[in-house]
Amino acid sequence: MARRRRMGEFQLIARYFAPLAQGFAGAGGLLSDNAFLPADPRRDIAVKTDTVVAGVHFLDDEKPGLVAAKALRVCLSDLAAGGATPFTYQLSLALPRTWTERWVAGFARGLAADQRRYGIVLCGGDTVVTPGPLTITITAFGRVASGCGLTRAGARAGDRLWVSGTIGDGALGLLAARGQLSAPSLERRYRRPEPRCTLGPRLVGIATAVADVSDGLLADAGHIAQASRLAIKIERERVPLSAAARRALAAEPGLWAPVLGGGDDYELVMAVPPRRERALLAAARAAGVPVTPIGTCAAGEGVTLLVDGRPVRSPVAGYVHF
Amino acid sequence: MARRRRMGEFQLIARYFAPLAQGFAGAGGLLSDNAFLPADPRRDIAVKTDTVVAGVHFLDDEKPGLVAAKALRVCLSDLAAGGATPFTYQLSLALPRTWTERWVAGFARGLAADQRRYGIVLCGGDTVVTPGPLTITITAFGRVASGCGLTRAGARAGDRLWVSGTIGDGALGLLAARGQLSAPSLERRYRRPEPRCTLGPRLVGIATAVADVSDGLLADAGHIAQASRLAIKIERERVPLSAAARRALAAEPGLWAPVLGGGDDYELVMAVPPRRERALLAAARAAGVPVTPIGTCAAGEGVTLLVDGRPVRSPVAGYVHF
Repeated sequence: MARRRRMGEFQLIARYFAPLAQGFAGAGGLLSDNAFLPADPRRDIAVKTDTVVAGVHFLDDEKPGLVAAKALRVCLSDLAAGGATPFTYQLSLALPRTWTERWVAGFARGLAADQRRYGIVLCGGDTVVTPGPLTITITAFGRVASGCGLTRAGARAGDRLWVSGTIGDGALGLLAARGQLSAPSLERRYRRPEPRCTLGPRLVGIATAVADVSDGLLADAGHIAQASRLAIKIERERVPLSAAARRALAAEPGLWAPVLGGGDDYELVMAVPPRRERALLAAARAAGVPVTPIGTCAAGEGVTLLVDGRPVRSPVAGYVHF
Repeated sequence: MARRRRMGEFQLIARYFAPLAQGFAGAGGLLSDNAFLPADPRRDIAVKTDTVVAGVHFLDDEKPGLVAAKALRVCLSDLAAGGATPFTYQLSLALPRTWTERWVAGFARGLAADQRRYGIVLCGGDTVVTPGPLTITITAFGRVASGCGLTRAGARAGDRLWVSGTIGDGALGLLAARGQLSAPSLERRYRRPEPRCTLGPRLVGIATAVADVSDGLLADAGHIAQASRLAIKIERERVPLSAAARRALAAEPGLWAPVLGGGDDYELVMAVPPRRERALLAAARAAGVPVTPIGTCAAGEGVTLLVDGRPVRSPVAGYVHF
C-alpha cells in the first residue's frame, strides 16, 4: 500500500528532473527517447561515465545533496583532466525500494546547485528501482578544441610532474568521516570534492599528459607513466599538503600511506615540459589554483617514490576498486 | 582468499574491455580519463542512457551474452527512434561481489558480437563492485544530420500512426520465459530484442514523431500524444501480430492486456503524414522491416483504443517501472 502513495517514474521526471533540463534545447524537456548534442565543427566532445554506489563510494547515510555533488563532481574532475569544459550530463538513478520523494527532492536540489556552479544542464537519463543499494551513474560531456583533448598518454622524458592543490586530504577525510581521525576540514573535503574545472581547460597546449587524482597520487601518476610509457619519480618532501594533513602526519607518520595512495583528492597531476612552466604558472594563477612540481619523467617505467632522495618501496598501490 | 585470486579493475579492463575499444581513436585504448567524440560540422550526436538490473529488467540467471545484448539493444532501439545511426557507447558495469571472470568473458563476447552486428565500438565507462545485484548502464551515441533528430514531439493532426514489425511478442515472451505460456519463439524475442536500427535512420524526413515500443504500445503512443499535444486513436484489429501471438490470443483473449501494454517489443511507433506514406513504405522495404498503419492523430489528448470501431477503456497503462 505504501508504494501506491508514491509517484511513478514519469511524475518523478516531470517534477524533479525536467526542470533541471530547462535551457538545453536538445533535451526536449526529457519528453523523448534521446538527447541531441548539437553539431560543432571546431570542438570535440569529451565523455566520462562514473558510477557511485551507496556504502561503497559514499557513506550509506550521506545527505542527498552531498550524494548529488559527489556523483557529478567525480565526472567533472575527469573532464577537467581532459582539458574539457563541461556543458551537459546524463543521469541514471537506480533507487532502492525504500526511496522517498523527500530524498529525491534533496538530490535534485543538490544537482541544481551544482548545475549553477559549473554551468551545466541535465540532458537525459534513466530512472529505475533496484533491490540493491542506491546506485548513480553519471555520463558527463565537455567541449575541447578539436584534437586538443588531454590524455594520460603524451608525457615525455624531461617533463616535470606537477600537482594542483594539496594531496591526501580526500583519504584523510574518509578516515575522519569514519571517526578514525579528528579533522573536520578534511571530512568536508572528502564529502564534497572540488574538481579543478577552472584549471583543466587552461592546461590545453601546456600539459603533455594529465590525470585526476581519484585513485591516489601514486596510482594516478602510475597511469600517466603506463600510458606515456616512461618512468616517473616523485619526491615525497615536495608533495603539497594542507595544514590539517601536515598535523595528522606529524602525529602519525603511518598516514603517508593513505595520503599518497588513498585517492579521492580530485586534484590534477600533470606532466609539463620545462619550456611551458611559465605558461603553467600563469594558467594556475588565472584559475586561482596553486600548482607544485613534485617529480620528473624519464625513460623507463613505473613510479618511484623518493624520500630524502632515496627510493622507497611504494607503500601503496592506490585505491583498489575491487 | 577467493577475492585475491580474481583480477583487479585494471586487469579486467585491459583483458576484456580494451579490445572492445580498438579502432575508436578517441577511446585511447581506455587508458585515459575521457573518451573524445570527434567534432562533426554536419551531424548532431543522439545520446541515450539506459540502466538494466538483474532480476528487474532481465532474468536473474540470464546468460551473460544475452545480458550484454539486452543492455545494449534497449539503448540502440532508442537511438533508432531518434533517427540516429549508432557509432559508439559507454559501459558502466556494477558487478555483484560474487562475479566470476568466466561471466565477464561471456559478457564481453556478447558485446563483441553486437559491436560487429551494429557497427559500434566501446569508448569508455566504469567498472565497480556492488553489494547489490548486477547493474548495467549503457550510454549509446548515434549520429543524425544536424537538426534532423526525430523526437516524440512533432506529430500533427491528420498524421497516421504506424508501427514496425509485430506487437506484443516481448510481453508474451516474458510470460513464456517465466513458464506461464508455452511459446519458445516469443521467449527468444524477449531475451534478445531486435532494435530497428535499419529503419530508424530512414525515417528522417518522413516521420513527424517516433518512439520505440519499450513501455508498451499504448503507453508509448501515449508519450507521442503527450509530447505532440494531440489525441491518438488505435484500432486494435489493425495491430500487427506474430503467428505465435495470434495463437496465444485465440486461446486466451485476456492476453490483449500484455500485448498492448506490456512493453519490451522494441518496435518503432511513428506518426507519418499521408503525403509521405509512399516514402515510408519505400524506406521500410529498403530496411527490410514491415510497417503497418494502426491509427490516427487528431486534435485532443490521450490515447483511445478502438475495438470493432468502439472506444474501450484502455486495459493497461503500460509497463510501470516503479
